[in-house]
This record gives sequence, C-alpha cells and structure tokens, in this order.
Amino acid sequence: MNAPTTLPDIQAHRDARNVPIDAVGIRGVRYPVTVQSGDECAATVASFTMTVGLPASDKGTHMSRFVEALESLPQVLDPPGFRQLLCDVVRRLGARDGAIEMRFTWFARKAAPVSRAESLLDYEVTWRGTLKDGVCGFAVHVLVPATSLCPCSKEISEYGAHNQRSHIGIEVALARDMSLRELIAVADGAASCQVYGLLKRADEKYVTEWAYDNPRFVEDLVREVALALRRDPRVGRFVVEAENFESIHNHSAIARIESPPADGRGAT
Amino acid sequence: MNAPTTLPDIQAHRDARNVPIDAVGIRGVRYPVTVQSGDECAATVASFTMTVGLPASDKGTHMSRFVEALESLPQVLDPPGFRQLLCDVVRRLGARDGAIEMRFTWFARKAAPVSRAESLLDYEVTWRGTLKDGVCGFAVHVLVPATSLCPCSKEISEYGAHNQRSHIGIEVALARDMSLRELIAVADGAASCQVYGLLKRADEKYVTEWAYDNPRFVEDLVREVALALRRDPRVGRFVVEAENFESIHNHSAIARIESPPADGRGAT
Amino acid sequence: MNAPTTLPDIQAHRDARNVPIDAVGIRGVRYPVTVQSGDECAATVASFTMTVGLPASDKGTHMSRFVEALESLPQVLDPPGFRQLLCDVVRRLGARDGAIEMRFTWFARKAAPVSRAESLLDYEVTWRGTLKDGVCGFAVHVLVPATSLCPCSKEISEYGAHNQRSHIGIEVALARDMSLRELIAVADGAASCQVYGLLKRADEKYVTEWAYDNPRFVEDLVREVALALRRDPRVGRFVVEAENFESIHNHSAIARIESPPADGRGAT
Amino acid sequence: MNAPTTLPDIQAHRDARNVPIDAVGIRGVRYPVTVQSGDECAATVASFTMTVGLPASDKGTHMSRFVEALESLPQVLDPPGFRQLLCDVVRRLGARDGAIEMRFTWFARKAAPVSRAESLLDYEVTWRGTLKDGVCGFAVHVLVPATSLCPCSKEISEYGAHNQRSHIGIEVALARDMSLRELIAVADGAASCQVYGLLKRADEKYVTEWAYDNPRFVEDLVREVALALRRDPRVGRFVVEAENFESIHNHSAIARIESPPADGRGAT
Repeated sequence: MNAPTTLPDIQAHRDARNVPIDAVGIRGVRYPVTVQSGDECAATVASFTMTVGLPASDKGTHMSRFVEALESLPQVLDPPGFRQLLCDVVRRLGARDGAIEMRFTWFARKAAPVSRAESLLDYEVTWRGTLKDGVCGFAVHVLVPATSLCPCSKEISEYGAHNQRSHIGIEVALARDMSLRELIAVADGAASCQVYGLLKRADEKYVTEWAYDNPRFVEDLVREVALALRRDPRVGRFVVEAENFESIHNHSAIARIESPPADGRGAT
Repeated sequence: MNAPTTLPDIQAHRDARNVPIDAVGIRGVRYPVTVQSGDECAATVASFTMTVGLPASDKGTHMSRFVEALESLPQVLDPPGFRQLLCDVVRRLGARDGAIEMRFTWFARKAAPVSRAESLLDYEVTWRGTLKDGVCGFAVHVLVPATSLCPCSKEISEYGAHNQRSHIGIEVALARDMSLRELIAVADGAASCQVYGLLKRADEKYVTEWAYDNPRFVEDLVREVALALRRDPRVGRFVVEAENFESIHNHSAIARIESPPADGRGAT
Repeated sequence: MNAPTTLPDIQAHRDARNVPIDAVGIRGVRYPVTVQSGDECAATVASFTMTVGLPASDKGTHMSRFVEALESLPQVLDPPGFRQLLCDVVRRLGARDGAIEMRFTWFARKAAPVSRAESLLDYEVTWRGTLKDGVCGFAVHVLVPATSLCPCSKEISEYGAHNQRSHIGIEVALARDMSLRELIAVADGAASCQVYGLLKRADEKYVTEWAYDNPRFVEDLVREVALALRRDPRVGRFVVEAENFESIHNHSAIARIESPPADGRGAT
Repeated sequence: MNAPTTLPDIQAHRDARNVPIDAVGIRGVRYPVTVQSGDECAATVASFTMTVGLPASDKGTHMSRFVEALESLPQVLDPPGFRQLLCDVVRRLGARDGAIEMRFTWFARKAAPVSRAESLLDYEVTWRGTLKDGVCGFAVHVLVPATSLCPCSKEISEYGAHNQRSHIGIEVALARDMSLRELIAVADGAASCQVYGLLKRADEKYVTEWAYDNPRFVEDLVREVALALRRDPRVGRFVVEAENFESIHNHSAIARIESPPADGRGAT
C-alpha cells in the first residue's frame, strides 16, 4: 500500500466547468450532544447536515473534515458554541460560506394541570446556522404538539366538538437569544390546549373542558403565534406553520404565515 | 465484451456452508397495477416484496427473475391472479417456497352522511401470499382511518370529550374471498365515527354528534372488530390493531388482538 | 337536527386581529389521477397539498371546497390542466392567491443496455403551481435514482472503487413545457450510470464497467445537471440537489446548486 | 369542578363482551435514558412501546401508569434493569402479561483502519422484554450499516464491481448477556467491509480494496451471521435480515434466516 501522504488529492484538482456550488457536504451524521438552551441543559442525540460553498475552480470538497469538526464538539453546546462550530467548519474546509443544521429531540418537564403529576414532553428542534458574505445567521425551529378544537364543529353541534393533535412549527431568526422554553410557551399559548405526557383523571377532565372553552381553527393557531412573535424584539424573520391531523378526515388542515421580508431586525 | 452466454453464473455455484435461507429476494419494487376486489376495480401503484426459499446447497438466487414476473402481470390483478403470480415466481426461481407482499393504495367512494356529497377515501392495503410445503396462503391487511372519542373524557367532563384520528389495522387470512369494502365496513362499524374526504357543515354537525354518542376506547375498537371477524366463516386467523393518535398527548394509545392459534379454518 | 342551511358559517365571520395568512388549506389528500407528460400518459396515485391566501379580515377558509375541486379533476391531467385546476381552486375559495402541490409516482419503461430486457423504473415527481398577484407559475420536481462512483476512490485504489445509489433531485420553473422524460434524461446523463429495474448478467457487466469508466463526485452530479439546464431555453429558475447514500459511511454526501435569482425567463 | 377522587373510573368497569386483549398500552413515548451495554454506557433518547394483557372482564387499562413507570427509570438502564422495569409496569397495571420495546440510538467509537482517526458510528437498537405466563424473555435487535460488494459483478466485469450500503439486522433472544459491541462485531465480520464515520484518503483506499477482496451476496451476509450466532451458547432464537440498497437498481435485495423453532436454550 502506498504511504498515505503520496496519495493524489483528486478533490483539490482544478475544475474547468466554471460552476460554483452553493452547498456541498454531509447529511444524516448523528452524534450525541449536550444542548443548553436558556438555563436548561440536556443530553440528546443530534442529526447534522453540514455544508460549505465551493468555488467554481475547485473539483471537490474534503468531506472527512466535517466529521472531524464533530469530533471537536464542546461538552455543552449552546447557541454561541453552535455559531463557533460553524465558523470552525468553514475554516477547516477553507471555505467562505457555510451552513450547519442540527436536529435534535428536546424535553420539557411539565406538571399536569390538576394533579401536578410530572412527566416529560418531547419536541423536535432544529438549529440552523448560516455564514454568508461574512454575516452569521442563527435560526431555531421547534415543532410543538398541541390540541386544537374546531370552533365551527362546536358552534353547529348540539354537543361535542371534533378536536385533534396539531403540530405548531415555529422558525425564528434570532438576533438575541430566546430559549426553547420561551418558544414552546408561544405555541402552547396559541393552542386550544397544551398536551402532556401524563394526565390523571382529574387532569383529563381539565384539559377536555379547557379545549372546549378555547376552540381554535388552524388559522387561529398561526395568527396567535404570529402576533406573539411580532411583539418580541428578539425575533427577526419568522415562519409559523400549523398542521391539524383532523379527526374527521384522513388528511390535514394546514396554515402558514411568514413574516414580511427582512426589516433589519433579524438574521438569516 | 464477452457474449452474455459465456459469463459465469456465480449464483448457481454450490455453497458448502450448509445454511438454508428462509427468504431471499427483492423489496421496494414499484409497479403500476390494476387491482380488483369484489366488484370494484382500480388503477393504483403497488410496492412489491418478493422472496423465495433458498436451499443450503445454492450460493445465490437470480434476482432479475422476480422483476421478469412483474413484467408479466395480468391486466387486472385479483386474489386468484395474485396467487397465480406467486406460483409463477416460485416456478421461475426454481424454488419450493416463496412469498409475495403487495402494498397499494385503495380508494373507496363515500357519500357524506347528510349532504350526500361524494369524495374518495384512501386506504393502505397489503396482500400477502405464501407458498410453503405445497400450501398456498392468502392474507389481506387494510389500514382504516377512523375517529375515536374517549368514553372516560366524555363521562368525567361537564362538556366536550377528547377525540382523535385512529388507525384500525385488520389482517385476515382468507379461505374464501372477502372484499376490501367488506373489511373496511368492519372497521367503520367499530369506530366512534367513520371519516370522510369531504364534509359540508351539515355533515360536520352530524359526525361530531355521532362520535359523541358513540364513545370508544382503543380497547373497544379492537374488541368490536374481533367480534365481527369471529362471526365471519370466511375469516381464518386474524390480527386487529388500533392506534389512537391521542389529541391530549404526544404519543399513541394502542391495542391488539390476535385470533387463537390456527383452528383449521383459514390459511397462512 | 337543524336544516343545513340554517347552520352558522363561522369561517365567514370577520377577524379583528389584522393578520393575513399566506397559505391555508389541506395536505395529504390522495386521489387517483391519470397524468400526461409529453406524449406519455399513466394512471397513478397523487398526494395533494392545496392552499389559498386568506385576507386579514376573514376568520377562516372553507376547507371542503378544495376536495370538491379534486372531485372535478379532468380524466387526464397535463400541465395546462393542472394550471386550470389551480385557477379553479382559487376561484372556488374566493381567493386571490393560491398554490397546489401534486406529488405522484411516475414510471419510465427502460430497456437494459445489452439484453434489451424491458422493465419499469419509478420516479417521485412533484408538480407545483402558484398563483400570486395574477401571475401563474409552474414548476416540476423529479427525483431520479442513479449510480455514482467515487473518482477519488478509483484513483487511489489499486482496484475497485466505492459506488452507491444516488438521488438526483431537479426542480425547474418552466416557461414552456419540458417532459418528464427529458428531465430524467438530464439526470441520467450526469450520473456515473443510470439505474434499471431489471438487469441480466450481460447488463450487470455493462453497468459495472460503465460506472467505473465514468466516476462522478456528488459535486459532478449537480454541476453536470446545472450545465444542461442552463443551456435549455425552456428552463427558468432551477435547483438541483444530489445525495449519495455512501457505501463506506452511514451518512450521505450532498450537493446543491440554485440558479441565479430570477432573470425574467421563468416562473416561480 | 368535581374533586378528582369522585370522578368515575370508566376503565375499571366490567366488560360483557368476553374478549380478552393481547396487548394494550402506549406507543411513541420518548424519554431520555442512559443505557449500559457490557462495559459501555451512553446517554441517548429512547422511544418506548409498553403494553399489558387485559382480561376479558375489564373495560380498559390505565394508560397513565405506563408513563409513571418511565418517571421512575433508574439513572442507568442495563438489561437486568430493563427486565425490572417490565416487572414494575406489569405490577403497576395489575396485569399478568406485558411487554416493553425500547428503541434507541447507540454509538460505537471506531478508529479508521489506517489513519486511526476516531469517530462515532450510530446504530438503531431495540430491546424487547416480554413477560408471559410467568416467563420473562429478553431480546435485542441491532441494525448495523455495512458495505456489500457483489461477487457476480466482480467476477463478470473486467474491472470494478458494484457495491452499496447494506443494513444487517440481528435479533437475538438472550439467555445470558451479550453486549452490543459483540453483536455489532458479528455483523461487521459478515460484511464485505465495515463502515466508518470518518475516513481519510489512506483509509478510503484501504476500505475500497478490502471490500473488493471480500465480495458478499446478500445471501452471504445472512449466512455468515447465522453461522456465528449458532456457535454462541448465549444466543437462543435469532432472526438475521440483510438489505442491500442496490447501487444499480432503485430497489433492495434482501435475505432472512430465522433460527429453528425454540430448542430450550433461549428466551422468546
């Protein structure tokens, strides 16, 4: 076998086609990571997508260096550390632009509304960092499960009202930090009722009646979230989406609001 | 390039390890197919898994012959044609045992309960054929979306009741034919309410009140289906599973009943 | 039960929050459809996402009307018919803007390179129509499976080269029609080798050697597609993405090129 | 609101239908957990399915108690602790039979074969515990990604050989403990080559040539694993499945071997 140092570096060859590549890298690399958000910290498993821009002149990028960066993860990763990871990746790859997307499961400890019995609720969270033209952007996406109860069904029916599990997805570009707890609270506040891992009978009565007292269309879910985000000075551009897994259909009802084009407040 | 006929046939070599293989073949091959069930016939797309048993003495099977069998699909495939396909595959592969699983989307035309507005509802269906020791078995699995409304929530709450979309999965070994329409009716009959593609306001009032009048635990869903299947002389062994996508949790409630071990009535 | 006509129309109420909604509608509705692309026509199953914009003043949209539009699908749906469907939906909903996404499985009949044995290959295709500010846009996304063989592995190894299945995803905004067959040919031309449903031994020898003779990085896949799309006057904006399901890793290598911002040639 | 203690317990009502339920419980509950296997210990995220058998006389089970059991998870969960969790669940629910399935991501630290550069590789692992008729069974399933290189393609081609990522799934009923490291080694030993998270150029040359020197059909993968498992006295019943994500097709090649019916050595 040849000594490693003598192996040709095909990726470093020049490319004559004159086609720059917006993003090249790896997807689906999973690593254990301890995430910090606000004053909470938790061990979880993350799936990474990591890319850099490639100039027209370069034939290929060096994929192994992305994983080398993951081998250097700090013991606890918070948003500043995540931005640092992005800068580190871009430097290792000799690139100017780059992006990292880190998707992980986050848990919140919740107390049931009457019994106060505690349990964890799981959320899918994505952190997105981008470095482009020297500007570093950071955005957070969180998917919050919730209950929605249909105002129309309640109004027109003599009794009952169809309700279902909904997903409220919030993506925010953050100029200043906003914890996952705060983002989840925005979604919970928009729903007919929040959901819990563990409910005793007295809690089940409580959430059933609470949802019936707070009917929300899928349109209401995104409007309430949008209003809350607009009021928050830390939030730049945002997208809020809601999906109701309708209990009376085999399809979903969906709604989406995107904030107006960038107004200088936020990143990404 | 060598002429094809002179290429060695590695798969046909003898294998000295003395390990027979229960099933070897292909998975995830999609073909368009027109399916007949009862007096209904529909064009759809199917995903096939096709395997044969391999004797200890053979090094490999000839994978391309599975796809050749799909190229010979009849214009319309009904359960007898499906069994024929299985026999054809086993013969082409020079095998004794084999199995085919065909998963496809099936549609039922439904009229809304009050407005009679028509729409289609989609179901995931799987046909499973097995040939083992000279015995040919045929089983059908259908996944039926439905509404379930919680009896406990209704009973303990002053008003309202949490409800959600449920999946009722029925797998039956059939000695004689039973149409998809009949199987779906069994699941619909067990639910708090059936679901529809299209509901006008008067229909929405109807299904809301109907579900409230017919609360069902996940346990009730499987029990009602099991009772109906036991009464049907065409049904041999069966498995019924229900999954409630709970509107008050971020997890599902599930239940499963399997028929007692084979009693000579059914196949597979 | 009240007569349907007397039921209140909650969705039609005025909303005082002053928050317009970019898109509201349904997702995951499946309908059988016969699709025409170029001179080819095939029955398939499609999954629809259909949305309209909702003014700030309206409380809700009328979800059932989306499904009513699907009930009026033409017998054969081609790109002009798809645009018509979009206009129909926007009109039924009393909206100004709207969008439809239709995802379906498409099949191409291919002959193996040496034996000429025929089989079908399946592709995931999405048609996207948008109506915004009176302008109707139409885009097509096709996901083409292909073989990629690593140029670096070939160059540095004494023998062999790692190769794998890749997905080449092409999204094009089309000002004039371009058939799926033509789009797939662009992806096939960029790969180390195209893939087939059925290969006999002589074909397997052929594709093995062909791929070895045509090594491609994931970067090459997207560059070759981008070059071909740039040359085609029918193509407006485009995005090409490739994903290699690396045979030597448990993650993917990916690359993406987006065309420069709109230049007046194409639609959204 | 009524005081919780006065709420009726519908689940505890008697059921007159005389239909026992094989399994009823919850699915998709995610909790963080620290898993111990052999001398390795790691924090991860697990998804739980937990069920009990329900006698014909009982109307329903008490779903919240499953989550209460998760709230009492030990700090570190090893196989004996997992069996204990199962006994705890069955006792809490007042049941005789029960089952727990815990699916989690496991990581192994690996050194690249030449450079010795270290990285983690991720595996999907499932622990299954069953308590039935007083007998407690424990089984482990691990999905190992690997490289397979086609012996036929190598033999018939002048140069090159198609290869691809494969999944080798091993399920073993264990009478005595066998670590995940040991199970993964069995799969690695059966493959054309094992896969790594990080490979430098010298490593890429090594794995390319190693795979070419060790061609394996999908049939070979399962036979080699079956032979190794048969030799291990700790292993009772087993199932081994392999899936090759063929680089020359858009479908998979698969194979499966199940151990002969129980011989008294192992558990479920």
